[in-house]
Amino acid sequence: MRPTGKLHLGHYFGVLASWRRFQESGEYQCYYMVADWHAFSSEYKNSSVLNRNIIEVAADWLASGIDPAKSVVFVQSAVPEHTELALLFSMIVPLPWLERNPTYKELKTELKNKDLHTIGFLGYPVLQAADILIYRANSVPIGEDQLPHLELTREIARRFNNFYGDYFPEPAAVLTETPKVPGTDNRKMSKSYDNCLYISDSPQTLREKVLRMVTDPARVRRNDPGHPEVCSVFAFHKIINLDETPQIESDCQSAGIGCFDCKKNMAEKLINYMAPVYEKRLGWIQRPGQIIEMLNDGNQRAGTVAGDNLKKAKKMAGMLWHE
Amino acid sequence: MRPTGKLHLGHYFGVLASWRRFQESGEYQCYYMVADWHAFSSEYKNSSVLNRNIIEVAADWLASGIDPAKSVVFVQSAVPEHTELALLFSMIVPLPWLERNPTYKELKTELKNKDLHTIGFLGYPVLQAADILIYRANSVPIGEDQLPHLELTREIARRFNNFYGDYFPEPAAVLTETPKVPGTDNRKMSKSYDNCLYISDSPQTLREKVLRMVTDPARVRRNDPGHPEVCSVFAFHKIINLDETPQIESDCQSAGIGCFDCKKNMAEKLINYMAPVYEKRLGWIQRPGQIIEMLNDGNQRAGTVAGDNLKKAKKMAGMLWHE
Repeated sequence: MRPTGKLHLGHYFGVLASWRRFQESGEYQCYYMVADWHAFSSEYKNSSVLNRNIIEVAADWLASGIDPAKSVVFVQSAVPEHTELALLFSMIVPLPWLERNPTYKELKTELKNKDLHTIGFLGYPVLQAADILIYRANSVPIGEDQLPHLELTREIARRFNNFYGDYFPEPAAVLTETPKVPGTDNRKMSKSYDNCLYISDSPQTLREKVLRMVTDPARVRRNDPGHPEVCSVFAFHKIINLDETPQIESDCQSAGIGCFDCKKNMAEKLINYMAPVYEKRLGWIQRPGQIIEMLNDGNQRAGTVAGDNLKKAKKMAGMLWHE
Repeated sequence: MRPTGKLHLGHYFGVLASWRRFQESGEYQCYYMVADWHAFSSEYKNSSVLNRNIIEVAADWLASGIDPAKSVVFVQSAVPEHTELALLFSMIVPLPWLERNPTYKELKTELKNKDLHTIGFLGYPVLQAADILIYRANSVPIGEDQLPHLELTREIARRFNNFYGDYFPEPAAVLTETPKVPGTDNRKMSKSYDNCLYISDSPQTLREKVLRMVTDPARVRRNDPGHPEVCSVFAFHKIINLDETPQIESDCQSAGIGCFDCKKNMAEKLINYMAPVYEKRLGWIQRPGQIIEMLNDGNQRAGTVAGDNLKKAKKMAGMLWHE
């Protein structure tokens, strides 16, 4: 994950919930990486915030149940083996493989206010392949939109194996269903829409944001029947207030409950739900030195595996110098 | 220099003579790098020879007077800081800067039997910039054909300095006049023409090659007057037999000396000239372990400087993680 700022509840109920599940399943040794080189590739003109953002993101992860005793949590730039493997791959990856990358075209449009016409940005799927393959990962938890990238990683693994012998597995996608989490304006929750509830929001902030949430725009008066399926408040009830959801649904449809009361109810439920996460985060963020220590421990663990694997890959490719 | 095989007398009287001069001038702390990543970028399908080629090239350097006590002699891939700085640069280098690179287009044509349409090959001037700037070099000894590359290095230094503050010098080219060294067929000496006299050639091999050399094609009979200015044997007299050159020139023009005698004379002079180099090379190449040791010492010295400089550059760019 790129450290571009504090994480919101879309992340919490989405990707972080998946990560926690993988971690707790016992099926995987998980590696969770703060992708600061990838962040730098689009934020190179505003990179002084990166180190702070890494701390914030790590605090969000820790608060959300990512456990450094179970998973390897680390910072990409602190494991330079990623860079070396990416360089090796770059020498064998045909340019057209990257130029046809649909996400490259999309992102360039999406982030058109930044200057992304760089070779680093064109090459970031190669770095991404190195991020995955340096651990000889078998599985990668991703959203469907990331499938073309993972396919490229698999192609790069195959090309290396063809040239130098079987070494890298072709990692499989582990697609995860994530609940649709709307923002306060009922669009998808996203920092760029300024409609987020953050993991780091205090109970009071959460309450205020929930009370200002957009509900059913067709329900103008208190007595109008509501349409919960289009209401962002109801979307949250479905996630964190499952028991009461059927009752709320019918009360809304029959105008038995007003939006204000419905919001107040949800706000308190959400605050309760998030309270332990919020407290845990507060505990960590007040001790950034301990977050750094935790990450450095992860960097070391990641570096040991990455170092061994890089050495073998370089040896197979004829690029391991005598030491 | 890319380790693509044994070096020939074109290298010896050209680039290596310049390197030796810089080293002995006392004006420079010289860094001489075996560019194995750059070799890999074009030789990735035949990379198993790279390690052997590094030893051969290093032996040629040592025999030619490159002195590890005076210069830092090292292997690129053994100093991974180059790779990291190249990645950082890649994020800030606009693609068009690379696409317009004339050498890129040329090399792609020249080496068209290899598959060079890779992102690594497109990006090699970025790696080259890192190779130079990681030592904060002020001067780079290059041929005129390399000027566009160095200009790109200077542009990259400027761009970094603009974004993150003054750090990298803009290195200047130190152009060196090198004598034109013809091959045995009177074309430019080049491995791809199979017309080389090698630093590693034994006296007997040198003699045989010289005796088969192309002279003035217009001088068919012994009594025909010769044109020394088009004769490859004469070109060598001018380099290693300066004292006799005026006499030989007039003897050739007046048909006073035949090509066979002229070749025999030159062969013996060349063998004498190269004998100490040949002997020195033999001494080294018979002890490859000592070459490796010498290079590892250089790798360490280069790595210390590169590590410090990379750290500062990453810090300025906001990419230095706490350690």
